[in-house]
Amino acid sequence: MNKISPFAPSKYPDICEISGMKFATFAAAIKYSHRDDVFLASFCQNTVAAGVFTKSKCPSAPVDWCKKILAKPYARALLVNSGNANAFTGKKGEETVKLSAQLVGENLSCKKEEVFLASTGVIGEPLIAEKLIPAIKKCASNLKPTPLINGAKAIMTTDSYPKIAFAKIIIDGQEIKIAGIAKGAGMIAPNMATMLSFIFTDMAISKNILQQLVETYVDETFNSISVDSDCSTSDSLLVFATQKASERGVRPIININDKRLNIFSLALKKIMHNLALQIVKDGEGISKLMKISVFGAKSRKSAKKIAFSIGNSPLVKTAIAGEDANWGRVVMAIGKAGEPADRDKISIYFGEYEVARKGEISPLYCEKTLAKYMKNPEIDIKVNVGVGDKSATIYASDLTHDYISINADYRS
Amino acid sequence: MNKISPFAPSKYPDICEISGMKFATFAAAIKYSHRDDVFLASFCQNTVAAGVFTKSKCPSAPVDWCKKILAKPYARALLVNSGNANAFTGKKGEETVKLSAQLVGENLSCKKEEVFLASTGVIGEPLIAEKLIPAIKKCASNLKPTPLINGAKAIMTTDSYPKIAFAKIIIDGQEIKIAGIAKGAGMIAPNMATMLSFIFTDMAISKNILQQLVETYVDETFNSISVDSDCSTSDSLLVFATQKASERGVRPIININDKRLNIFSLALKKIMHNLALQIVKDGEGISKLMKISVFGAKSRKSAKKIAFSIGNSPLVKTAIAGEDANWGRVVMAIGKAGEPADRDKISIYFGEYEVARKGEISPLYCEKTLAKYMKNPEIDIKVNVGVGDKSATIYASDLTHDYISINADYRS
Repeated sequence: MNKISPFAPSKYPDICEISGMKFATFAAAIKYSHRDDVFLASFCQNTVAAGVFTKSKCPSAPVDWCKKILAKPYARALLVNSGNANAFTGKKGEETVKLSAQLVGENLSCKKEEVFLASTGVIGEPLIAEKLIPAIKKCASNLKPTPLINGAKAIMTTDSYPKIAFAKIIIDGQEIKIAGIAKGAGMIAPNMATMLSFIFTDMAISKNILQQLVETYVDETFNSISVDSDCSTSDSLLVFATQKASERGVRPIININDKRLNIFSLALKKIMHNLALQIVKDGEGISKLMKISVFGAKSRKSAKKIAFSIGNSPLVKTAIAGEDANWGRVVMAIGKAGEPADRDKISIYFGEYEVARKGEISPLYCEKTLAKYMKNPEIDIKVNVGVGDKSATIYASDLTHDYISINADYRS
Repeated sequence: MNKISPFAPSKYPDICEISGMKFATFAAAIKYSHRDDVFLASFCQNTVAAGVFTKSKCPSAPVDWCKKILAKPYARALLVNSGNANAFTGKKGEETVKLSAQLVGENLSCKKEEVFLASTGVIGEPLIAEKLIPAIKKCASNLKPTPLINGAKAIMTTDSYPKIAFAKIIIDGQEIKIAGIAKGAGMIAPNMATMLSFIFTDMAISKNILQQLVETYVDETFNSISVDSDCSTSDSLLVFATQKASERGVRPIININDKRLNIFSLALKKIMHNLALQIVKDGEGISKLMKISVFGAKSRKSAKKIAFSIGNSPLVKTAIAGEDANWGRVVMAIGKAGEPADRDKISIYFGEYEVARKGEISPLYCEKTLAKYMKNPEIDIKVNVGVGDKSATIYASDLTHDYISINADYRS
């Protein structure tokens, strides 16, 4: 067992029923034993889905499938397994995907093109459909409106804690619920086939607008954590909206200028941010969390690239792990990003402490103060690169011996 | 002290005198004690220099200086220190550079613009010129034609062994010598301010042609090792040719089509390759060396990017360190490179063993055979991405507990 992250929450939100959806989990022993590893969610008619997926050139079979069916108007189910990513599995992987979707469809009386799929775990080993068959049947006959946390647990791989988030908002005088679950990621590059997140709501909203929201917010949330989230073969974020709120008198949001959209979109963004942060806080072997903000850049994209260059640098990560305010390595990472930056105007802060000013060590630099600051579990790095007025913030975990231990013998 | 790399050579070439140059070293206690940390080389009149430098947006003061003086026709000296990179040191850094060059010039009766400089070590701490003054004077009065290995030792930082290479060639019936020294690098990103390499020859060759050779060969040598050599603030490769061979009757090479150039350029490329490989073989904490070849790519650039995506992936590196033939992580790294690749045509070999074929596990895959292969100190990974006919090969070190230990407390 991996060590529990020092950032593991001490308690989890109690997620109540979300109208129009039910859940079940099952222990199919795909890779793990003595725990559930299959998660099934069923949705009522009229449920719409939005989603974004990995940009990997080697996407998994379930990602190929989801991308294809996302064009269809409705979603009726979501099937997820952990322990095997069904990635780089050729024709066999494709067949397993089709068979699973069909079987879910038969059990829940819907079309196979309404069944979303996700798999996470080892890459390159065939996912045996025979293991999924009893799991699908058992789950289909066992669907219940709560508790969702079982789903969060079933999709875990090297995660040290389940990741869930919950919000209630009021629209048209009615309570709307948004719940999300996620599974974590390795620290630098994605662990294997990594990031999965599913968000569920009874909101009444058009598929088109939901998709726009997800695409907009993913940049500042899931794509702003240092797990190279665009890199895995299986990264998937799916949001399902059952529309059930309309039965309680909530007028569906079908126009992007609808003023009520602000309330929903803010809540959705918060859930996405919350889950993304939980993922990085459970980065393999994490001992410290870095919040890295880059200011004074030419563009937001440039700021983000510099921030990731810092957050993904093994030398910065190891320095943070070692509680060393080694801002020279931050300079190195700024330099290697290849983005516009004026060396002689760069300033760097660790927390509230200025360590570099105008391209050299700050006159305010105090080793003792910094040494004390570096003992914090969360380290805040601010950089001004002095060439513009755009900024970006990302979150990253550090690099520790535990990361090596976890990954030097994961598969065996 | 860091552990000695398992790839450290058991003996070093005996480098004899290269006509037209002399060397000296000195212990200036810039950072290290009980060892030499300053290296001075002096060259005869008519010596020409060629060089390539870091592409970092935050280059060190010595790099700025060398880039500027490389436009001048002649080189008369090279001064190198370890322990401090003189990078991100603002005006002070610039002044130290000028003062050092001037002082060398005074002591060796040449212009300051004929004095090349390099510094390697911690970033952001001012390099005190006062420490260099006695070192320069002492070195200048102590110059000798051999042994060059003392220079290789003086420029080391976290290197576990000095890196030297030597070749003799015959042109126009005369023996020409080429000797090179280098200092090593961290494993993934450059250690601090990292890669320095200096090559010395008595060849008679024009500055212009020498520069073309260096620029051509750097791509396949120093820029094909997984130390992200274009990223550090101080990476410098300088080649000095004293022209002394012309006194022995060797006609100077002044034409790129001169047939005799092949002999020299091949030897130069070999020296560069040899030194580059020595650097990666001394990567911090290295336990295994990876040779990664990518075939079937759209372009050489694309092949190289995919190869580096594999060689720089912490998950691939940790798997190799753990002797795990985890080719799924290789797939992940191919996918995240973002370069053209046909998932369903990809094949992967570990050594001579096919592990993946046409986008899935190979029918020849044998865990036991692979497990045995993975115990080798050098692991050969071959990938065909199935979209073209271009290829590239890079070398990378693995990622171990020793890397973390070295880097989590380097500065303190």
